Amino acid sequence: MQIAIVLFPHFTALDAVGPYETLGRLPGADLVFVAEQKGPVRADTDTLALVADKTLDEVPNPDIVIVPGGPGQTPQMKNEVLLGWLRTADATSTWTTSVCTGSLLLAAAGLLKGRRATSHWLALDVLEEFGAQSTGERVVFDGKYVTAAGVSSGIDMGLTLLGRIAGDETAQTVQLLTEYDPQPPYDAGSPEKAPAHLVEKFREQSRFGEDEGQE
Amino acid sequence: MQIAIVLFPHFTALDAVGPYETLGRLPGADLVFVAEQKGPVRADTDTLALVADKTLDEVPNPDIVIVPGGPGQTPQMKNEVLLGWLRTADATSTWTTSVCTGSLLLAAAGLLKGRRATSHWLALDVLEEFGAQSTGERVVFDGKYVTAAGVSSGIDMGLTLLGRIAGDETAQTVQLLTEYDPQPPYDAGSPEKAPAHLVEKFREQSRFGEDEGQE
Repeated sequence: MQIAIVLFPHFTALDAVGPYETLGRLPGADLVFVAEQKGPVRADTDTLALVADKTLDEVPNPDIVIVPGGPGQTPQMKNEVLLGWLRTADATSTWTTSVCTGSLLLAAAGLLKGRRATSHWLALDVLEEFGAQSTGERVVFDGKYVTAAGVSSGIDMGLTLLGRIAGDETAQTVQLLTEYDPQPPYDAGSPEKAPAHLVEKFREQSRFGEDEGQE
Repeated sequence: MQIAIVLFPHFTALDAVGPYETLGRLPGADLVFVAEQKGPVRADTDTLALVADKTLDEVPNPDIVIVPGGPGQTPQMKNEVLLGWLRTADATSTWTTSVCTGSLLLAAAGLLKGRRATSHWLALDVLEEFGAQSTGERVVFDGKYVTAAGVSSGIDMGLTLLGRIAGDETAQTVQLLTEYDPQPPYDAGSPEKAPAHLVEKFREQSRFGEDEGQE
């Protein structure tokens, strides 16, 4: 089963590495990082670069598509090369998935119209503008479309989808070997749980919905 | 504050990216991936490569050292170039940290003798053989030494240390923006919680303690 994880400049690294480290452990998986050009692709911090081993053109029909998000997603929403590849890949994919604002790229490609989906909590409004039904859930399945909330949720998405494809025991094995028994030192991981003034601050600062220029 | 994340062939990607995405968001941090040679370093799957932007020699005195683990840690336990760098960096570091079997590299460098520390659950015995007091805890502080359990625990370590250095609100902000509100689909993330037959299977298969040739 071929799994393609899409990279673009200023993606968020954990968005990509969460599903890689979980779903990527699917027995027999042929996982590949893809981008418009081969070679290192810098993440949003500029201090991390992941290597794309193949171009989009070289991987036209993956079984599973994984699209991370990150601030770099905004200009990609007008990149017809990437959007066209997403539409083509989706036409034959078994699963089309995203983490964080990666769902806005699926939405911009027209793939989430009328579908239930999620995204980073600061981007849910934009998802709605593209005709998706946004939910505040962490992992959302709608047919073959699987979207996850912000950044770290890709780990939960990856394990959940791994269980669907390969069975509970395979997913439990990966959870055990990655020792995924989370013990966050704070309980501030969602807008409902974080201190209200932090949530407000980022809602005000949020660039989501301003830069996209949709309509 | 300079943060150096050490890469070596066949490291586990999430071990490195968990602290990168959390502790790396420390305001004013100068984070750099380092390795013996610059350039792409392949992870344990061979399908992911992270770029080392500087050599070990170029970053002799980071304020924070982060050592990931992964199956590739085993040969590194005899790599005097890396072990020597760890000793030198540790001599002036503010924090010396590890994720997963990265703690075995700190131990092999002689840095954990008599200290409380943790590692991947399959590697705790080896830690003891190097004179550390292994604990089953997820994140262990002993002075400036901070060790984390397997793979995903680096996220909890990164957030915890971020809070110690920059205050609770900074760490909560990173937790909120990475939407770290974990909802694993299974409860199998530790040897105490996972199905017993899976735990047994991996204890039997475990290569930790066989290949290292300590003593």
